[in-house]
Amino acid sequence: MTNRIWNFSAGPAVLPESVLAEARDNLLSLGDTGVGVCEHSHRGKPFVAVAEEAEALCREIGGIPDNYKVLFLQGGASSQFAMVPMNFLSAGQTADYLVTGSWSKKAVKEAKLFGNVNVACSSEDTTFNYIPKTQSWSEAPRYVHFTSNNTIYGTQFASEPTGYADDAFLVCDASSDIFSRPIDVSKYGLIYAGAQKNLGPSGVTLVIVREDLVESGNSELTSMLQYRTHANADSMFNTPPTFGIYLMMLVFRWIKAGGGLAAMEQKNKAKAQCLYDYLDSSNLYSATAAPEDRSLMNVTFVTGDADKDADFIAKATAEGFNALKGHRSVGGMRASIYNAFPEAGIDALLQFMKDFEATA
Amino acid sequence: MTNRIWNFSAGPAVLPESVLAEARDNLLSLGDTGVGVCEHSHRGKPFVAVAEEAEALCREIGGIPDNYKVLFLQGGASSQFAMVPMNFLSAGQTADYLVTGSWSKKAVKEAKLFGNVNVACSSEDTTFNYIPKTQSWSEAPRYVHFTSNNTIYGTQFASEPTGYADDAFLVCDASSDIFSRPIDVSKYGLIYAGAQKNLGPSGVTLVIVREDLVESGNSELTSMLQYRTHANADSMFNTPPTFGIYLMMLVFRWIKAGGGLAAMEQKNKAKAQCLYDYLDSSNLYSATAAPEDRSLMNVTFVTGDADKDADFIAKATAEGFNALKGHRSVGGMRASIYNAFPEAGIDALLQFMKDFEATA
Repeated sequence: MTNRIWNFSAGPAVLPESVLAEARDNLLSLGDTGVGVCEHSHRGKPFVAVAEEAEALCREIGGIPDNYKVLFLQGGASSQFAMVPMNFLSAGQTADYLVTGSWSKKAVKEAKLFGNVNVACSSEDTTFNYIPKTQSWSEAPRYVHFTSNNTIYGTQFASEPTGYADDAFLVCDASSDIFSRPIDVSKYGLIYAGAQKNLGPSGVTLVIVREDLVESGNSELTSMLQYRTHANADSMFNTPPTFGIYLMMLVFRWIKAGGGLAAMEQKNKAKAQCLYDYLDSSNLYSATAAPEDRSLMNVTFVTGDADKDADFIAKATAEGFNALKGHRSVGGMRASIYNAFPEAGIDALLQFMKDFEATA
Repeated sequence: MTNRIWNFSAGPAVLPESVLAEARDNLLSLGDTGVGVCEHSHRGKPFVAVAEEAEALCREIGGIPDNYKVLFLQGGASSQFAMVPMNFLSAGQTADYLVTGSWSKKAVKEAKLFGNVNVACSSEDTTFNYIPKTQSWSEAPRYVHFTSNNTIYGTQFASEPTGYADDAFLVCDASSDIFSRPIDVSKYGLIYAGAQKNLGPSGVTLVIVREDLVESGNSELTSMLQYRTHANADSMFNTPPTFGIYLMMLVFRWIKAGGGLAAMEQKNKAKAQCLYDYLDSSNLYSATAAPEDRSLMNVTFVTGDADKDADFIAKATAEGFNALKGHRSVGGMRASIYNAFPEAGIDALLQFMKDFEATA
């Protein structure tokens, strides 16, 4: 077995080694079935058991109330950017969007095809390095949409936005911090998340949606774009991405065994704190996000000198630190340290950063 | 390692054992990268190399002309049922659909949301057990849609439909026989196929589409539903299903090493012939599809006695023949024997069928 290196990829991202080892051992035969996990019919007992366990664990770990559906879909958050307004926004209706990064902007672009968008706030004025504290809510929005964590800019909402109209429901793109900390699902109408950061491989999208909203959605859409289609068929209206759901089930088991979301949050806070403390004390590096809005998932930093950044990334890569380069739109460095990123990797990165600073 | 059993699942379906073994060995580290295949960024060099090889092999094996795009999408054939008319059919325009099974019917249902559908033929009168030989073409259809193989009913088009208006382009749902035999791609405007039968795991959809059609598609759709979005971004507009594409690349390598599509067809014909010959000679079983329309992929048969069918399936399952039960809508038995299903499994099934017949 090749030694695994420290993988700071923003997504697809590192998965727990024990999860990968178990998946590996089931590729040619899921348990003792004699049929590999990717080869089972989605309607056969062995895979149905996987899907049921995935949903049950998701509900248990996430504290998801009974009046919410848990769906496993395809198409990523990018498909949800459209599915949300297609289902819930009619021409003439307005939705409020909090614009805190590129992904929120993309969500706005798609929503505008279907209804009115009120940009309730934006931090684009300073390259999205903070979360705006005040919003210009519209009078009667159908829903309020926000991106809980911004992978590119290293910012994260500390808590849900408040103060919007009572009748509106909250929609969250939680792709990059889902299940990294406990949340009160009952505050939300709909939460969506591409799996490839905290939950599994790319190709599965988790959607948690309140039942009354499912029923209220536009029923004139093509089948695959209606939440009710998937809700009514337990996410098996069509063939689901079986391997992705299986891997997600294993990740849920791993989260549960690791103490659930409260334990995840504690570890994530500790990991991020180590890096931010050092960045704040360093004479070379500086964190790019506003201190009060720093992400526990994506730690972004610069030296202030693009050549030095490039040198840092080249040397880090050579020493086996994978994917520390910041997103092409902002440059600098980014350490993505989702649930599955181990503490030992933080220690190793800190040592490397200190060594680099000493010689820079 | 648990012994693998004979897996006749209609999809997700059996994959080549060598492909699964290689995937297994790359789950914790893709090659010597130290990062598992599911954990690599889709924009990093190691995965980009995978995606490029997948496309190159697909083009080589399939003989895909340069003026066609090869796309790796999500959402399965069910999403294509809508994407095709959304992109190419305006209100008032007509498309011709050949209705040869449940999947064609579903495609018709979705297309009707966007334009006029002319059902050019249907074999529903006899539970879809044949492929109609004559069609009632409309005068100027935008496109003609057919399902090349019908998994549930065990029928398959021997060749592409002909005789429709010159200006129309041909669209094919090839989910269950893609790359099981050579086809002349230049006869088609668009071919789509969920991967989970002949190409890989569920969760990836292969789309082969002529460039001029991509450009002609409706540009007012939400981004994810426009073919041009994916064509312009080499299928990386959003995070693609990386593991599925990787497995598909391995399957393409396996097809190439096995002699390409001509060799696949030869093997598939031989496998199916063994079963049909025996069914035709048997006093117990009979094949359900019209002889001239029999599928090389899904061999459907009955004893004519539902209790005996149930007994057959129970005993076969007990002896390690997986998923021989026919689709719930038609009953009876179905042996799905896609490219990756081995000859030895056909021999084993034949022996079991003979033994069962001898004692029945």
